[in-house]
Amino acid sequence: MKIPKEILRSIRNAKSVVLCTHIHPDGDALGSLLGLADILEGLQKSVFCYFEEPVPYLYAFLPGRDRANCSITDLSTFVADNEDVIAISLDCGDCDRLGKNSERLLQIDTFLAIDHHRSHKDFGKHRWVEPRSSSTGEMVYELAQSLGVDISYQAAYNLYVAISTDTGSFRYDSTSSRTLQIAADLVAKGVYPGEVSEYIHDNYTLERIRLMEMVLQTLDLYASDQLATIQVTQEMFRDSGALPEDIEGFIDFPRSISSVKVAAFIKEGNNGVTSVSLRAKGQCDVAVIAKSFGGGGHRNASGFRCEGKTVAEVHQLVIDVLSNVLKQQPVV
Amino acid sequence: MKIPKEILRSIRNAKSVVLCTHIHPDGDALGSLLGLADILEGLQKSVFCYFEEPVPYLYAFLPGRDRANCSITDLSTFVADNEDVIAISLDCGDCDRLGKNSERLLQIDTFLAIDHHRSHKDFGKHRWVEPRSSSTGEMVYELAQSLGVDISYQAAYNLYVAISTDTGSFRYDSTSSRTLQIAADLVAKGVYPGEVSEYIHDNYTLERIRLMEMVLQTLDLYASDQLATIQVTQEMFRDSGALPEDIEGFIDFPRSISSVKVAAFIKEGNNGVTSVSLRAKGQCDVAVIAKSFGGGGHRNASGFRCEGKTVAEVHQLVIDVLSNVLKQQPVV
Repeated sequence: MKIPKEILRSIRNAKSVVLCTHIHPDGDALGSLLGLADILEGLQKSVFCYFEEPVPYLYAFLPGRDRANCSITDLSTFVADNEDVIAISLDCGDCDRLGKNSERLLQIDTFLAIDHHRSHKDFGKHRWVEPRSSSTGEMVYELAQSLGVDISYQAAYNLYVAISTDTGSFRYDSTSSRTLQIAADLVAKGVYPGEVSEYIHDNYTLERIRLMEMVLQTLDLYASDQLATIQVTQEMFRDSGALPEDIEGFIDFPRSISSVKVAAFIKEGNNGVTSVSLRAKGQCDVAVIAKSFGGGGHRNASGFRCEGKTVAEVHQLVIDVLSNVLKQQPVV
Repeated sequence: MKIPKEILRSIRNAKSVVLCTHIHPDGDALGSLLGLADILEGLQKSVFCYFEEPVPYLYAFLPGRDRANCSITDLSTFVADNEDVIAISLDCGDCDRLGKNSERLLQIDTFLAIDHHRSHKDFGKHRWVEPRSSSTGEMVYELAQSLGVDISYQAAYNLYVAISTDTGSFRYDSTSSRTLQIAADLVAKGVYPGEVSEYIHDNYTLERIRLMEMVLQTLDLYASDQLATIQVTQEMFRDSGALPEDIEGFIDFPRSISSVKVAAFIKEGNNGVTSVSLRAKGQCDVAVIAKSFGGGGHRNASGFRCEGKTVAEVHQLVIDVLSNVLKQQPVV
């Protein structure tokens, strides 16, 4: 990984740094940002951690979470009161995803983007984009090495959360030997993988399990068992008492069936909109399918929305379109 | 990790080695055994891989799986035809778990045991037991280092499967910095974590999902929601069409509930025996509980069997004993 000189120079020269990330931040967004905050303070810089919304309850265990500041007034004061202020966005592939105050953030003179999304759309003054990196957390680790900063326990913890969540616990394709080496080093700094994974994976409710049962009952196979669909309705949320975020990971169940090439999760919203998440294995490119419905995403993970259609209608649509696509795919 | 001299000497001096492991072998049993087979062949030794049953279908992707030999006649022929034969059992904490031919195996002159179970009951001539090691796979890696053998791609693949499955994808307490360093080295030898995890996690059947639904419906909480139980009966296997090995991982669902300190999985066997798996979080030591029922295992993962009791009776027993234990645990 070669870090662009302008990125290193801008960071070295700055006295103050505003850090920001994408809306609905995940473990990599939060961990890489809070980790970098610590690393920059190790270089005696003032740091402002801007988030559009407070840290989600699932990540309330992150050290340094209290640094999250959602006030745009405080942000403006920080920029006005400090010298040589730069901004760095982390893990954000599109400036629209910086949230409702993206314009204010982009007004900061030197705006750097550090990201690993393949679909990254350039924004800001200088960019460092590594689509082959497992996570932005991994990039921040390399940045700390290049800046010659010792990584504190708190930074190590945040970076470990970033890397382990964005690799699905080191299960995804993106996990390299270097990813595991870095994880080993972070653990050597005192992070307990067992503790981190207990916070991340053992943090569910009985309501979530009840919803899981209901959703699994909707599982059906089509297209010679190559397509699996599951569904969730507002009624299921009411009956189980589960929260919208409790469906995270459910699509992995249909995806885990060996014959399945595409898994689709049809979700009834509370606003007349039905959304569809698609996950593909092997050759099938579900980004193209999602795009044809006005959605987007990665080759293996994408989604789209349908307004004014019932769950049953969207389900039939998904079966029709994907059965057709799967017929045309070469059998691999 | 210090490998006993007798272990190293016995292996160095042997010309032929019989490898064996526990019945119902998991990823660590299979991966450490097949990995060691390759490593020993790198030292020009003849190797016989004895398994009581063929490799389960979930692990049919392991390189070298065809080496599994279930014939006790072939084993006797191998012992008779070769010089300086030793036996090594891997990942087996109790000689009874070597299976129905354990006596024949233990007759082999020099019998070594390599294991990481805390509850290991000594057997054989020499032992190397490391309860702090994440997996027997990790121990076999260290053994290869001490023996000065280059680890082949095939051995690396098997050891990676052993380590990653026995740490729940590097999530369990037992994952150390060294565990991750070793994983990094195995990946550097050409193993793709994404490929391995696709085989392990995306290799299920619709029947497994149907069984999962049924088992989740049995989920109940006790002891102020600190104890969660799930059950599987022979009837559920019949109704779903799932196989015995399809229950792997089900205990993670009750364990994932945030209030739960102990999860118990009560399994009706087809032979009048009901078995119980226990998983603990935090302070609770379920190895002690399993031991009191004649079972064994680790502090956080253990099990025992009950003969002549119905599933309902065993369920009630589990509730009674664990409710009592959880009352006495300090709240952490």
